Amino acid sequence: MLRTHTCGELNMQNVGQKVTLCGWIQRVRTMGAMIFIDLRDRYGITQLTIRRFLNRDEFNEVNSLGREFVISATGIVAERSSKNPNIPTGDIEIIIESLASLEILNESKIPPFTIEDNTDGGEELRMKYRYLDLRRNVVRKNLELRHRMAILTRNYMNEQGFIEIETPVLIKSTPEGARDFVVPSRMNPGQFYALPQSPQTFKQLLMVAGFDRYFQIVKCFRDEDLRADRQPEFSQIDCEMSFVTQDDILATFEGLAKYLFMQEKGFAPGEFPRIEYDAAMREYGSDKPDIRFGMKLVELNETMKGNGFKVFDDAELVVGINAAGCAEYSRKQLDELTEWVKRPQVGASGLVYIRYGTDGTLKSSVDKFYSPDELKTIAGKFSAIPGDLMLIMAGKTEKTRTALGTLRLEMGKRLGLMDLTIFKPLWVVNFPLLEWDEASKRFYAKHHPFTSPVPQDIPLLETNPGAVRANAYDLVINGVEIGGGSIRIHNRDLQKKMFQVLGFTDELAQEQFGFLMNAFEYGAPPHGGIAFGFDRWCTIFGGGESIRDFMAFPKNNSGRDVMIDTPARISDEQLKELNIKLVNGEL
Amino acid sequence: MLRTHTCGELNMQNVGQKVTLCGWIQRVRTMGAMIFIDLRDRYGITQLTIRRFLNRDEFNEVNSLGREFVISATGIVAERSSKNPNIPTGDIEIIIESLASLEILNESKIPPFTIEDNTDGGEELRMKYRYLDLRRNVVRKNLELRHRMAILTRNYMNEQGFIEIETPVLIKSTPEGARDFVVPSRMNPGQFYALPQSPQTFKQLLMVAGFDRYFQIVKCFRDEDLRADRQPEFSQIDCEMSFVTQDDILATFEGLAKYLFMQEKGFAPGEFPRIEYDAAMREYGSDKPDIRFGMKLVELNETMKGNGFKVFDDAELVVGINAAGCAEYSRKQLDELTEWVKRPQVGASGLVYIRYGTDGTLKSSVDKFYSPDELKTIAGKFSAIPGDLMLIMAGKTEKTRTALGTLRLEMGKRLGLMDLTIFKPLWVVNFPLLEWDEASKRFYAKHHPFTSPVPQDIPLLETNPGAVRANAYDLVINGVEIGGGSIRIHNRDLQKKMFQVLGFTDELAQEQFGFLMNAFEYGAPPHGGIAFGFDRWCTIFGGGESIRDFMAFPKNNSGRDVMIDTPARISDEQLKELNIKLVNGEL
Repeated sequence: MLRTHTCGELNMQNVGQKVTLCGWIQRVRTMGAMIFIDLRDRYGITQLTIRRFLNRDEFNEVNSLGREFVISATGIVAERSSKNPNIPTGDIEIIIESLASLEILNESKIPPFTIEDNTDGGEELRMKYRYLDLRRNVVRKNLELRHRMAILTRNYMNEQGFIEIETPVLIKSTPEGARDFVVPSRMNPGQFYALPQSPQTFKQLLMVAGFDRYFQIVKCFRDEDLRADRQPEFSQIDCEMSFVTQDDILATFEGLAKYLFMQEKGFAPGEFPRIEYDAAMREYGSDKPDIRFGMKLVELNETMKGNGFKVFDDAELVVGINAAGCAEYSRKQLDELTEWVKRPQVGASGLVYIRYGTDGTLKSSVDKFYSPDELKTIAGKFSAIPGDLMLIMAGKTEKTRTALGTLRLEMGKRLGLMDLTIFKPLWVVNFPLLEWDEASKRFYAKHHPFTSPVPQDIPLLETNPGAVRANAYDLVINGVEIGGGSIRIHNRDLQKKMFQVLGFTDELAQEQFGFLMNAFEYGAPPHGGIAFGFDRWCTIFGGGESIRDFMAFPKNNSGRDVMIDTPARISDEQLKELNIKLVNGEL
Repeated sequence: MLRTHTCGELNMQNVGQKVTLCGWIQRVRTMGAMIFIDLRDRYGITQLTIRRFLNRDEFNEVNSLGREFVISATGIVAERSSKNPNIPTGDIEIIIESLASLEILNESKIPPFTIEDNTDGGEELRMKYRYLDLRRNVVRKNLELRHRMAILTRNYMNEQGFIEIETPVLIKSTPEGARDFVVPSRMNPGQFYALPQSPQTFKQLLMVAGFDRYFQIVKCFRDEDLRADRQPEFSQIDCEMSFVTQDDILATFEGLAKYLFMQEKGFAPGEFPRIEYDAAMREYGSDKPDIRFGMKLVELNETMKGNGFKVFDDAELVVGINAAGCAEYSRKQLDELTEWVKRPQVGASGLVYIRYGTDGTLKSSVDKFYSPDELKTIAGKFSAIPGDLMLIMAGKTEKTRTALGTLRLEMGKRLGLMDLTIFKPLWVVNFPLLEWDEASKRFYAKHHPFTSPVPQDIPLLETNPGAVRANAYDLVINGVEIGGGSIRIHNRDLQKKMFQVLGFTDELAQEQFGFLMNAFEYGAPPHGGIAFGFDRWCTIFGGGESIRDFMAFPKNNSGRDVMIDTPARISDEQLKELNIKLVNGEL
């Protein structure tokens, strides 16, 4: 090793030792004839002190060492006179006795932004020089967290008898789900591999193969238009078990979650509540409710309809939330809130408020339709008290719930109810099996086509497919869907029925999923599983906003890596070998 | 859980307990009115016994349960009268008391081959029904070994302070090395991602980023024509360290290897020998010598040239091996061996033998050129004793060594010297930096363009590039290259020089590796690393022949997965979205 110690480990116990450190120069300070160098590596910062020995030229030489130069320094560990209690190595310094004890291992140009926790570099610049961005403590700590989470997950799963099995990356394109990335095959001209959106079919085949308990932390790929929490490639903790019920899966993975909480956060939340999808939508206007705070949706059809307010009278649903302590919102604030909910991202048609003054009086934007006594009754429905502000929407049931759910989150954020140090996990269960698509006039699988219906709902597949509940579940933490899964169909006839409901011809089902349906004829065990968004989980645990901050080399919103400048042109020779050509050379 | 226990855990301590097992029917046997069912799962086999209760119909119903049916069975654990000492559950059986205690969870068609250790299924059939092939103990054990090796590796690396960091799969095509798989970008028309042949540049950037110790078990991709030990996608244990010398890397990863040996095999080999590339070629005719046995190459220029045997006199090198105890080889066997070495895969021009009879006489195929005394001298060079057979080749040095090295392995195999339970790891060091390609009249990097030269050889880059040794090393176990790596160039000027020697223009170097060379201007630390072929390592440890047997879903020699039938056509719509078309629709 070019060093005897790292920059993060020396302390009073090492005083008097001769050591060699290697690292990057964080800063150089002078005080009279003395020079101090803060030397940084992954493990910490140690102060190098040069007290004597320097003539003018030597002083200038050391003083001109630039930020981010890589040096090796040899000296004696000494107790500092003025200690720095903020860093583990703050009690000591390394006394450098001669210029020969400092060696420049590599120089550095001046970095395009400062390598500090609060940097002056914008996102695009930091991504272009990601290798410098990664030197910042905040970013490095994110990746260290990710590493620990992966190690913990693997060891927990191993101890539970799960086997990690690598499934292939070069697989087959399927028309269901998101768009596939494809890979032209040189050896099979005109044919393509696809990159997996998930190892779904392979993990089911592993259950047919009798592996009983499978997991994998695995890269998945979706060619989607990108948002902050989407990346073309992302990582999943992918799991599957045989001979289980939903309860078994929830218990197993609640165990994993608690283990990660305990190891990484030092505490584990109590038993995770389980809430039906229907209840989640009704009470929170979301299938991934943030239950760090209440502010539940209150339905008001019986209380507020029939008073002549046409908007409410015509609505399928009148529903509101109580923003505690917001009665003092100004007219301007209320107008702003109304505009906010009318934006297309929220999609509400308007917002009615009832202000519960601290003096006990009730005042609303629809006063002419409701008497003070009626407003009192409404306030009672909300369990509102003086000082509260009730916010009410009306319209189509599902749309209105979702819009109000979005407002609920916004009010939670504005009221500081979304504490990043509090974690409230829960299970959302019994999702609808199918979703009707108006455009293509057909049902789509809400989860995927292998999800089993809740057994008692199977007859409804014939009569009312839209009402069939799935034996499916999501793990939600603080309003983020961390994972989801289902008990699978293991019976070929039921799978066939499912494909029929989804509008697949027998031929198409056979072409796309024939290998899985064939496998089900050779003794498929009852099985189910779950997959967790590993990037998201790390982001939640790290208190971050975007999964990009928890990936070493993420892509931007155009799917580009601006550091290595990809995607890029390939040579004509490559295209020729792959038997493809570009539709338009200059598109 | 649908079961109380697995099929591998019940024993005498459970006698009297009521249990429920789930699994696959391995076989059904009858003895008079009794029926025995062997029930199998991942964990073992347990015998179900039906003694009484059956009427004719019930008997027939149970007796007709087919192989590979999935059933659930509830009964009482009882001591067996005739125990089976070969399986852990052989002391007990489960007494089934009523037909209602047996539930068919899923039926199975008759499998296309037997699910036994020695199956009647050929490779193609087993690959098509891989989910059945994976039920076989031998295949399952391979994947269990692989899982354990991955867990052990990760925990060891974690304890050594290495961080696992996921590098991207969608990267950029580079012209060096093997052919890339590419992925057309929909969002960036006319542009492509490439799948990584290794995360080489990313791990070097992580060192520039200060991560100090990185590792990853990672999928890599090469679009090569396939052989038994090659797959289009394979897994690497990829590692990189900063502030290290070659010795540090060898010590660290010798530690990993010994840990894996100790944990998985129960013993660790002593210190791994280190042998120079030149010596490996000279002594074993191979840069990955199998040192489980000696039979070293013996050079005979001084002893055998100049006696008038033109083939030898004209040869650059005369060299042989001593096949101990093979003096009794018949003329026919010797002819067969001569034909064997003349095959293009070996490429020798002929084979001369000297037989050391058990009576002490020496007899050779070139007797007329060498007197008995001269033959005795030659035998002395080989340290041959009566009963041995010396096999000698001549020709161009490198070619002859390689051919004789191949013959050495063949003789080792024929003589039973390649014991699968013996493991002889070694390091091969100081590889040549460059390889001359006669066709393109240029040097290629033997390892890759970022490998540093041995410091004292740097001046030779100007004068005699072919003689420059690389600061590079391979780990070899039993004749298989398990891993290789190098100390990298961290200095931009030296990297530039290297690209010049490789015939890159500045522009091309900048276009292909500009981001790495730019990164080196911002304080790159001295660093080096290594990558292990994880599939190969598992194969060696598992005593297997082909890496395919240690992958869950391998591809065949045409790069096809015959189970899911990929690669495959994609839709015209997909092609259109990706802005590509096929050169010839019906190629």
